[in-house]
Amino acid sequence: MANCSERDVRRQWMQRILDHDGVDGDDGGIEAWLRLGESVGMSRQEIQSQEHVLPGVRFACDAYLNFARRASWQEAACSSLTELFAPEIHQKRLNTWPDHYPWIDIEGYQYFRKRLSEARRDVQHGLDITLEHFKTREQQEQALGILQFKLEVLWSMLDAMQIAYVYVEPPFHSCPELRI
Amino acid sequence: MANCSERDVRRQWMQRILDHDGVDGDDGGIEAWLRLGESVGMSRQEIQSQEHVLPGVRFACDAYLNFARRASWQEAACSSLTELFAPEIHQKRLNTWPDHYPWIDIEGYQYFRKRLSEARRDVQHGLDITLEHFKTREQQEQALGILQFKLEVLWSMLDAMQIAYVYVEPPFHSCPELRI
Repeated sequence: MANCSERDVRRQWMQRILDHDGVDGDDGGIEAWLRLGESVGMSRQEIQSQEHVLPGVRFACDAYLNFARRASWQEAACSSLTELFAPEIHQKRLNTWPDHYPWIDIEGYQYFRKRLSEARRDVQHGLDITLEHFKTREQQEQALGILQFKLEVLWSMLDAMQIAYVYVEPPFHSCPELRI
Repeated sequence: MANCSERDVRRQWMQRILDHDGVDGDDGGIEAWLRLGESVGMSRQEIQSQEHVLPGVRFACDAYLNFARRASWQEAACSSLTELFAPEIHQKRLNTWPDHYPWIDIEGYQYFRKRLSEARRDVQHGLDITLEHFKTREQQEQALGILQFKLEVLWSMLDAMQIAYVYVEPPFHSCPELRI
């Protein structure tokens, strides 16, 4: 948003920050995320310390941040479009997690319920910006390249978790004491 | 080096750039690396296009670049100290690769031979800077944190390659046509 010169776009985009940081009377998405973390059994301090964040996950997130920092606001908006698939995924989690993971405190699901409606609205805004800006064939190819990059970020995060928690490969299998 | 205010340190560090970029009469390390790539069967164009670089590898390299950009020159020098182990590793490659990979053109090994002596000299310089700068217990802990970060960069690269080429996990198992 810091790269966006259009007041009207900023006004609309601002809602995402309010959603996450919260306002008086609404604790916001970050707080809901912390509660979800607590619902799966972590302490607030444990989550905020980021001690469990795998290096591969961190590097992928940082790649996204650095992209958004340098990109134009239209490019950054375009990169948010993986959210197109978010509402359906959130709904699936709400439907199936209570069965799969009965030990998760149902209070925690508030995060997904909250994102369900927000993501639907956000993605429409991102889509409007993208369709408005990327018009020529060349621009459309660029938009696809941006989405490819975003998918690579998400896949890299999953890969890092897969190797750590499914393949339990050293040194990153949540055994920090084994790190060299 | 751009963050270094000490002319004498820059003069010495400059040698690393000359080593890699080359000078008249010496093609330099980047050229030797390209020849190593050709020796294992890739075309120069293929290597330079970076088409085979896995996203997880790219994100890890970028994390290192971004670190070096923001860090003080002493911190950046400290992060190079994983090279302490490089000469021994290069020597092992020279000793064993011709047996393990007889299909690699031996011309390509020039890269490792070149790095063998350069790394010995470089690491002494990096070690001098680090021992000179990180003196208190707190600073030493910081130096260890920097090396931990550097190891995380290297491990993340290996993890990305492991999941792509050993576990052959989609989407990144060198089948770009399968990327979604």
